[in-house]
Amino acid sequence: MAEFDLIEVLRSRCVQARADVTLGIGDDAAVLAVPAGCELVVCTDTLVPGVHFPLRTDAADIGWKALAVNLSDLAAMGATPAWATLALTLPDADREFVERFAGGFAELAAQHELALVGGDTTSGPLTVSVTAFGFVPTGAALRRDGAHIGDAVVVTGTIGDGAAGLCCAGEEEEGSAILASAPEAARATLRAHLDRPQPRIAIGESLRGRASACIDVSDGLVADLGHVARASGVGIEVESARIPASSAFVAAVAPDRRLALQLTGGDDYELAFTVAEDEAEALFGALRDTGVPVTRIGRVIRGSGVRVLDPDGSAVDVPRGGWEHFR
Amino acid sequence: MAEFDLIEVLRSRCVQARADVTLGIGDDAAVLAVPAGCELVVCTDTLVPGVHFPLRTDAADIGWKALAVNLSDLAAMGATPAWATLALTLPDADREFVERFAGGFAELAAQHELALVGGDTTSGPLTVSVTAFGFVPTGAALRRDGAHIGDAVVVTGTIGDGAAGLCCAGEEEEGSAILASAPEAARATLRAHLDRPQPRIAIGESLRGRASACIDVSDGLVADLGHVARASGVGIEVESARIPASSAFVAAVAPDRRLALQLTGGDDYELAFTVAEDEAEALFGALRDTGVPVTRIGRVIRGSGVRVLDPDGSAVDVPRGGWEHFR
Repeated sequence: MAEFDLIEVLRSRCVQARADVTLGIGDDAAVLAVPAGCELVVCTDTLVPGVHFPLRTDAADIGWKALAVNLSDLAAMGATPAWATLALTLPDADREFVERFAGGFAELAAQHELALVGGDTTSGPLTVSVTAFGFVPTGAALRRDGAHIGDAVVVTGTIGDGAAGLCCAGEEEEGSAILASAPEAARATLRAHLDRPQPRIAIGESLRGRASACIDVSDGLVADLGHVARASGVGIEVESARIPASSAFVAAVAPDRRLALQLTGGDDYELAFTVAEDEAEALFGALRDTGVPVTRIGRVIRGSGVRVLDPDGSAVDVPRGGWEHFR
Repeated sequence: MAEFDLIEVLRSRCVQARADVTLGIGDDAAVLAVPAGCELVVCTDTLVPGVHFPLRTDAADIGWKALAVNLSDLAAMGATPAWATLALTLPDADREFVERFAGGFAELAAQHELALVGGDTTSGPLTVSVTAFGFVPTGAALRRDGAHIGDAVVVTGTIGDGAAGLCCAGEEEEGSAILASAPEAARATLRAHLDRPQPRIAIGESLRGRASACIDVSDGLVADLGHVARASGVGIEVESARIPASSAFVAAVAPDRRLALQLTGGDDYELAFTVAEDEAEALFGALRDTGVPVTRIGRVIRGSGVRVLDPDGSAVDVPRGGWEHFR
């Protein structure tokens, strides 16, 4: 199958009619119109097998996740998704792989009325790079550098499911050991969280003008809060007992292994944000409509770095933090 | 070296101060402002070793070329470059590779005042995906689908140098044979054309409102003119004797091998465009200031496909056309 057929498979599955796409796939470049009064928000993330997803992941899940991790970055900026481009490098022109991949990508794209506007398929080791585009009203983008001392620190959803899902994949010995006695239903739930994260777009949009700083939890909770702390010139204190866990996570992971997965596991794709203490309750009320739980886990303090406190108030020793792709 | 250091190397070498970059590298996404009255033009192209550049190519040349092939697509749309994002997958965190790569990328970026606004570095087999962003006045983008019967067909620069440069790299037996007796200086010139193509940005800008269709010559002259013919619903006739060749190409390539390289070799990154016959001379005058020669090579005819005529008017048998990445 030639390159042009691959692009056609992707185009036919992933194209959305949008009035702001003057010219989509099929020319040297796409021509696009950003709405008046809006800024363009752009991010790019690459997935490679064995690093960003388990080797035996279904192609449909790879397609979903390649878009989801980028939409999660847009959510962290408060942006509304609009378009994406895809650079797909494949070892061979495997039509079934491409069709399954396109199906997963298209399923998530349709949920957000996102149009695939360009792409490139090349021959080589499997690598998936997506660039995603969204809009925010000018000046309204959420950033990492606005946290103030005294702000509440809040996370969406539950933390640790992605890391536990990776343990379920059974490709790392230590992970397999952690989940050795996990019930089958819990494994399936956690694996689904790993393979099909739900970018928190509606929450991000609701945080515009309200959150003082925001980031998505992809590298690990402590590492990502550390990015906020550093950019904002503050410290962050987290109460370990407040970090929300899903029932599948609790069912699958032994009590003494939970906190390490939650603090450093990554792959959560939840949002972590800060909000002024006196605006927190009003914001929580406004977020109730999204159906996604939010949990206050700590506060912004004077100083630097992230400190995690256990229930008796003593500092938890955090394992070497965060996801680094070269390790 | 951790991911964050790699990004810092790239950021420090490749960032341009631009008033339209509200927020560059360092947050979850970039925040950008498209000028009023302009549309956004976006393209993405991936390079992998042994497919898009010879295996032993200098990292600085890879950095240059990864941006150049994308700027060539912007040029073909008549767009003015503004920003780029980079997804770089590397087998290991080789600081020297990254610094040389960033140097080549930055050199071309500086020529066009282009800012690197985002990126992702991951561990895996070498793959370089660039997404480039430019602007055109609303409605002024050059497309493939506007060629009219009777229009002149024109190319910039010379054709065949990229393909001859690839032969110089000596990684394919047939290519090495073609250039076996080429002078050293001609080899160096051709190899430079392969490694450091010059995107025809100024020409593309000058073609706005004048060319009826435009494309960049990356897949091979016949294949790319074929894209224009198909999109426009016309045929194209090319006179082989008119296709411009560089003196290095003529010095290096035996007469009986030249035409095949020129018609199907690809990697030229020149522009091929069509223009109404009665506007052609005025346009050629306007392009003289760019310093890049333009040559009329044929005309748009009724029918479909691309026909190449030799000097006595008989049709040339074109080898199987164009660059297909899965072959």
